[in-house]
Amino acid sequence: MIYFDNAATTLPKSKKALRAYKKAFQSCGNASRGGHPYAAHASELLYLCRERLAERFGTEPERVVLTMNATHAINLAIKGIIREGDVLISDLEHNAVYRPLYALEKQGCIRIRSFHVNIGDDEATVQNFQNALDENVRACVMLHASNICGRVLPLPALSEAAKQAGVPLICDASQTAGHFDLRLRELPGLTALCMPGHKGLYGPLGTGALLVSPYFEGVLETLLEGGSGSFSADPEMPALLPERLEAGTMNAPAFAALAAAVAEDGQTGKKEEQIFSYLLSGLRATSGVTLYGAPTREGMPYCPILLFNIDGKDSETVAAALAEADVCVRAGLHCSPLAHRALGTPDGGAVRISLSKHNTFGEAERFLAILSRQITR
Amino acid sequence: MIYFDNAATTLPKSKKALRAYKKAFQSCGNASRGGHPYAAHASELLYLCRERLAERFGTEPERVVLTMNATHAINLAIKGIIREGDVLISDLEHNAVYRPLYALEKQGCIRIRSFHVNIGDDEATVQNFQNALDENVRACVMLHASNICGRVLPLPALSEAAKQAGVPLICDASQTAGHFDLRLRELPGLTALCMPGHKGLYGPLGTGALLVSPYFEGVLETLLEGGSGSFSADPEMPALLPERLEAGTMNAPAFAALAAAVAEDGQTGKKEEQIFSYLLSGLRATSGVTLYGAPTREGMPYCPILLFNIDGKDSETVAAALAEADVCVRAGLHCSPLAHRALGTPDGGAVRISLSKHNTFGEAERFLAILSRQITR
Repeated sequence: MIYFDNAATTLPKSKKALRAYKKAFQSCGNASRGGHPYAAHASELLYLCRERLAERFGTEPERVVLTMNATHAINLAIKGIIREGDVLISDLEHNAVYRPLYALEKQGCIRIRSFHVNIGDDEATVQNFQNALDENVRACVMLHASNICGRVLPLPALSEAAKQAGVPLICDASQTAGHFDLRLRELPGLTALCMPGHKGLYGPLGTGALLVSPYFEGVLETLLEGGSGSFSADPEMPALLPERLEAGTMNAPAFAALAAAVAEDGQTGKKEEQIFSYLLSGLRATSGVTLYGAPTREGMPYCPILLFNIDGKDSETVAAALAEADVCVRAGLHCSPLAHRALGTPDGGAVRISLSKHNTFGEAERFLAILSRQITR
Repeated sequence: MIYFDNAATTLPKSKKALRAYKKAFQSCGNASRGGHPYAAHASELLYLCRERLAERFGTEPERVVLTMNATHAINLAIKGIIREGDVLISDLEHNAVYRPLYALEKQGCIRIRSFHVNIGDDEATVQNFQNALDENVRACVMLHASNICGRVLPLPALSEAAKQAGVPLICDASQTAGHFDLRLRELPGLTALCMPGHKGLYGPLGTGALLVSPYFEGVLETLLEGGSGSFSADPEMPALLPERLEAGTMNAPAFAALAAAVAEDGQTGKKEEQIFSYLLSGLRATSGVTLYGAPTREGMPYCPILLFNIDGKDSETVAAALAEADVCVRAGLHCSPLAHRALGTPDGGAVRISLSKHNTFGEAERFLAILSRQITR
């Protein structure tokens, strides 16, 4: 079985993560609830996870809010920070960004506007962003890399422009957290970074994080309220992070597992990039393949994701045929109708392949052979 | 080590749950995302969990929304159903109910009112509820049993009264789900049932559920929006449950574990009730102990939870001394300042002991001995 659906969730996951989960399963009480050893152990494991994420992403443990997935983190950031005005997004956004903003727009709070990401040109992309960044814009939300084509946005320049304009910027790093170095302290224009634990970090499903910038001094509005284990007499959630955004019982064993995964997976190897280049060349050389949003030249920073269609075939049909041949890919819209529109894919979307550090050149070879022998003809 | 903090989270948890988690860890893709075997397997495990919860709680799998904890479920229910008007709660509520309502009140949407739970008298409690249930009340939210004193509210009568008044009733079953039989189809006045997976069901941390009544025909407003894996071209979450309230990647391995726990733990034994009675008698016979909210007569339905203080000692000091003696309890306010006020505990709260099916008479004996020999004197 070739697993090429790592942009959905990576497989296999960290073995050390599973070991940490097993160890924590019967030894964790309810974190921050009570002073006995089981509760204290759960609190320690959560703190360990905050520490490791903070170290990896250049911030402090107190600024790491642990969530159930990236979508949860994005909702907390958007609804915690954005009150009104125009909100600027890229035209490659996933529904994890678009739908919460649409809900605010429908309530009459905000207006969504978008800027165009030029696939081959960072400068033009930054220019598009700056042109759109007028005095009505009160916040920006954008992905770091597209979940359908792997295009990485020039975040340093974009966040610097947002900083100059005095506008908060929330970034959805669902595809890049773990793949690329990203350090909040080095990006003062970045207000919040949202990520899953179960993709590029190889942690378990059910984990994610919202990292709030050390430069952000506001108070986030809460979205979920409940017991916090502290300041219980107050009818509001505690003012301090991370407690403010963490309501109810925390999933300590899963975050112990994420902590183990983060410690294990220090950096992304070169191998994925090389396999990505190999697959890109192979797809370009396969007749009947149309690529969407692929890099226009060597050396552009890209996540190892490729989007294509086969002439005359619906994307779902191609994915089903690949599944028959033991290749796992994802077809359709990938929860990203805006991005599919921007890249000009047909109504039925397209086929996506996405790599992890576990994929091999052998798999890429087999995939290309299957594609040209069984699928394109 | 005697673990008497099962109202926070039960320990030990189901061994079969851990086995199911381990099995699912490397075999689950992203549920509802893609048609390959890993994604399909994740979807199947989620559905299995819905089926088992639906069977246990008398509803249909489609009405089971899987959440990260009970607080998440309560927030989804409150903010999904309640728009405006007076909201009636009991005076024993946990912050998981009070704080989300307080957030709505602060926004000017609603007004919180409460009715008094008479500890020894169900009829008086129902009467208090009915007296408060005037035409301004648009919704009721209440726990099924108190997390600090175990008092079980007369839900059938209360939900029938809510039904007669045409007002939705949301119930927080954090302490009762798994302990008592509760079937949505038999309680037509109950609109939504919220529960954790990690307490009376002995499932893993990181799990909970919102069960929406078969009699509820409205559309729930969403609180979290994002990818749903279906109807991706729509800027709103799908109209149908459970997808409508499940945004982003689902924690399939944890819900596989919960499914295993629910299948294993068919009913609560009599043993907990007997140990509870034994402890209650023992505490009553220990000089220097003041109990709060304990049953006033034999046979009242109670969760196995007891709340007390030792004369002249702060609750935290008592809990710390018990922890020294290898007894895990929880002191303070237990995220329930309203309930502590209603029961008249001092400012420092009180000490809570709470049982699971794994506790033994031997532990109860040892606890009472430690209390009278080391703590009260």
